[in-house]
Amino acid sequence: MINYPNNKKTYNKFKSFANRGMKLEEMINATNEYYLEKDIAVIHKKPTPIQVVKIDNTGKSGKIIDAYFKSPSTTDYNGIYKGRYIDFEAKETNNKTSFPLGNLSEHQIKHLRAVKEHGGIAFIILSFNHFDEIYLLDADMVVEFYYSSKKKSIPYDIIKEKGHVIRKGYFNKLEYLEVVDKVYL
Amino acid sequence: MINYPNNKKTYNKFKSFANRGMKLEEMINATNEYYLEKDIAVIHKKPTPIQVVKIDNTGKSGKIIDAYFKSPSTTDYNGIYKGRYIDFEAKETNNKTSFPLGNLSEHQIKHLRAVKEHGGIAFIILSFNHFDEIYLLDADMVVEFYYSSKKKSIPYDIIKEKGHVIRKGYFNKLEYLEVVDKVYL
Repeated sequence: MINYPNNKKTYNKFKSFANRGMKLEEMINATNEYYLEKDIAVIHKKPTPIQVVKIDNTGKSGKIIDAYFKSPSTTDYNGIYKGRYIDFEAKETNNKTSFPLGNLSEHQIKHLRAVKEHGGIAFIILSFNHFDEIYLLDADMVVEFYYSSKKKSIPYDIIKEKGHVIRKGYFNKLEYLEVVDKVYL
Repeated sequence: MINYPNNKKTYNKFKSFANRGMKLEEMINATNEYYLEKDIAVIHKKPTPIQVVKIDNTGKSGKIIDAYFKSPSTTDYNGIYKGRYIDFEAKETNNKTSFPLGNLSEHQIKHLRAVKEHGGIAFIILSFNHFDEIYLLDADMVVEFYYSSKKKSIPYDIIKEKGHVIRKGYFNKLEYLEVVDKVYL
């Protein structure tokens, strides 16, 4: 029984899907494809690291039959924009009061810090799913909170104050390079 | 029967192993670890792209039981050095007369060209295994030969003339950033 659109719960579910549209990762990937095609930037998602244990070579091409996901030692995205090295990680949270930094590994935190120290542009793209808000958080701020906050999280209020809202364009294009222009260039 | 070191063939085999030492990829990875540890550069190998088809979730952590290797759309290595975006692919050849460009996909060629156009540093690290020589070839030269040479290869003579020899340091450290300094910075 589907009571859409009168059943409020069901309606909200649809509404929430419509608002969020694509998942954050899908939005970023589509945006990067657009940037690449329009020759604006060359930014790619790195493949998910997988440890291959066993390959079945009986077929034409090797089929992996035993493997497992490894935890990444760097971030998901990197590339070049206006001659600058860009590096970032994308995270979503359903939390309403803060961004829990346990979502990031210490490897990733150290990587973001190293990129900044070497003159690169490094940040987190963070989606507060509940508010349908997406922020760019500079790596320095994230690194600082990672090592100084007892709760290992950044309060929502501080993100609202110090983060930079990323606008969604048509077709869920996530205009994060607009924010990069404003914040870093 | 092992006649080492009098049997010339066996001896040569050992000699060749000693010379080559590690495989090119292992040498680059070890060198990048060194660069990272010494805070010289942040350059990582991207994970091999794998398409996961099926995961067995009966155990504690998901075990991948069906997957296959995808062909990479970019290069193997990228990162930041002295504030500059660096991007390269590593290739070995047993060929004695030329570097066959069929070793590179058109995706990779286009990627290298795009990186150069956006102000990045892009090249191939090429090992001529037979001569135990390793060269840095600027992306422009590789792109040019890819689209202009009928044989889709770069003759060894031209590589000797226009390529840049990369020195092996102690413990097979591949001093490719020395060459980057000289050629690009």
